Amino acid sequence: MASSHKLILEAMEGRASRVPVWLMRQAGRHLPEYLALKQKYTFLELCKTTEAAVEASLQPIRRYNMDGVICFSDILVPLEAMGLELDFNPGPVFAHPLRSFKDLDRIQDIDVKARVPHILEILSTLKAHPETQGKTILGFTGAPYTLASYAIEGKTSKDFEHVKAWMYRDKSGFLKLMDRLADLVIAYILEQKKAGADAVQLFDTWAGHLSREDYRDFVCPSTEKIIAVAKENQLPLILYCNGGSHLMPEMLSLKPDCLSLDWRMSLEDYCLKIPDSIAIQGNLDPSCLYGSKELVIQRTLKLLDFGKKRGRYILNLGHGLLPNTPIENVKAFVDCALKS
Amino acid sequence: MASSHKLILEAMEGRASRVPVWLMRQAGRHLPEYLALKQKYTFLELCKTTEAAVEASLQPIRRYNMDGVICFSDILVPLEAMGLELDFNPGPVFAHPLRSFKDLDRIQDIDVKARVPHILEILSTLKAHPETQGKTILGFTGAPYTLASYAIEGKTSKDFEHVKAWMYRDKSGFLKLMDRLADLVIAYILEQKKAGADAVQLFDTWAGHLSREDYRDFVCPSTEKIIAVAKENQLPLILYCNGGSHLMPEMLSLKPDCLSLDWRMSLEDYCLKIPDSIAIQGNLDPSCLYGSKELVIQRTLKLLDFGKKRGRYILNLGHGLLPNTPIENVKAFVDCALKS
Repeated sequence: MASSHKLILEAMEGRASRVPVWLMRQAGRHLPEYLALKQKYTFLELCKTTEAAVEASLQPIRRYNMDGVICFSDILVPLEAMGLELDFNPGPVFAHPLRSFKDLDRIQDIDVKARVPHILEILSTLKAHPETQGKTILGFTGAPYTLASYAIEGKTSKDFEHVKAWMYRDKSGFLKLMDRLADLVIAYILEQKKAGADAVQLFDTWAGHLSREDYRDFVCPSTEKIIAVAKENQLPLILYCNGGSHLMPEMLSLKPDCLSLDWRMSLEDYCLKIPDSIAIQGNLDPSCLYGSKELVIQRTLKLLDFGKKRGRYILNLGHGLLPNTPIENVKAFVDCALKS
Repeated sequence: MASSHKLILEAMEGRASRVPVWLMRQAGRHLPEYLALKQKYTFLELCKTTEAAVEASLQPIRRYNMDGVICFSDILVPLEAMGLELDFNPGPVFAHPLRSFKDLDRIQDIDVKARVPHILEILSTLKAHPETQGKTILGFTGAPYTLASYAIEGKTSKDFEHVKAWMYRDKSGFLKLMDRLADLVIAYILEQKKAGADAVQLFDTWAGHLSREDYRDFVCPSTEKIIAVAKENQLPLILYCNGGSHLMPEMLSLKPDCLSLDWRMSLEDYCLKIPDSIAIQGNLDPSCLYGSKELVIQRTLKLLDFGKKRGRYILNLGHGLLPNTPIENVKAFVDCALKS
């Protein structure tokens, strides 16, 4: 029988009875039942078909019984709420990328309910679902810089040529875009909360490519705005910045409720720098799950030891679960926390 | 008239009269004269045709007059010296990747002179060339972990699934491979020295994806071995680990002559941690060169201010020069140092 406590929320408040666990990208390609579901839909159709997305969100819960249920979606979906047309081929594609200040005219007024109703239906269905009772329902979104990166490049990029060219040539225009994206993210996560999200995670997948100076100048203002509104609205927020170990001082200054650390940030080092008031989530290298079950257990127990001593700790990976990860290793990882 | 001093070597020894400068990937696609040359050869042909590679190496010198001449080649070329067949399509491809311990049998005895003679011919031609007099001739190679990553994945990878699976499932086998790659790198850089390299740079492009623990266990032993031999042979060595800001304590323990820092490592922070005996190279974000000329000059002068105060400093980018970089900005960057 599942506990009726929402352990992830409790851990963020420092009062959980054990370390809770969930995994970034826990729903998806490592599960045969997901691959079966995926045969009937394209990725975007799956994101937009409530019943199927709810099923994809619940699949990992049935198999592993982790403490967090994250809605099946994509970090870029919110861009559709301002009228940018998203496609996948197989990576994300925007046919008409934003390239300069004048392109901001093409951005439409934000309307989450009208343009991306499915994300709200998925969350409210998950919230009411018998299989999620006692679990924390997690909403999520790409953070402004990551949204900007895709909206400007039009696709996944290695060098972010167009993003950087804009950033370095038109600082005020770029900051204007970032501010509009902050407003988008705010509208999006507040609607997610109304629909049933207990907490949200902000994924800043690409901000780790920035220097400290550029992160401070170009990213902090919009993220700060989002975090302030989340706090005003009692919406617990987890900030994740992939490859951002060098940005720790700046991330701490943003005072998120929880920092999700990638595996390059050694917990022993970083916990000393992170004040007790900020919860820590993470941070096993997802590729460790390609190793032996013994290695998975050994490294996970080390994280749990740290987490139990530290408090305000949520077990997770340092990045998304990888496609070919063996199921038995995911189970071993989750079980370590369930038994903690 | 060029100075007859080799400023990069002098900066590494702390006795340069001004800050020297070169750029990672200074030869290549941002130059129209390179694109013209490239029409006659595939990338691999260009690496293996001495006359053409010498021409490609000299092109940036003619345009910018930087202090370092790096031989035109690829970080993976040394793998051919142990019999692994390299191709480009357009990224590097190994048709028969190494996937486990038993594949080590396919590795042949190292023979740099017989299997990759062109790299030595390019270096000796550059050394004797009138246009390089007074300049530092730089050899280079991929570091063992980066060589292993390509040899195991068979191509550029996002998640390094096969590398990590091997690493985590067969530690001793993986370390054996790393040790053989250290021997390869040693043979390769010593031959480069004999052919004319004044110093070499070790590129560890992918090691920044590792946690500190894994870098210590899997990478440090082979890199330590290489650095020890380079020291014994009075071959100045620059260590570059992309995205490795979290690995600073480990990199310092390796005591390279010079650390090449990427732009995510703030010089103000890191110079405090790096002992004066280790030279620092870097670290402008190469995408800053997409910005205005004023921005380039402003940020470069800031680096130079730091470098002049600190000493043992070489101006460079934090990663390779990007393909569409405007020539006038490269020139502005180099000129800042030439006039320093």
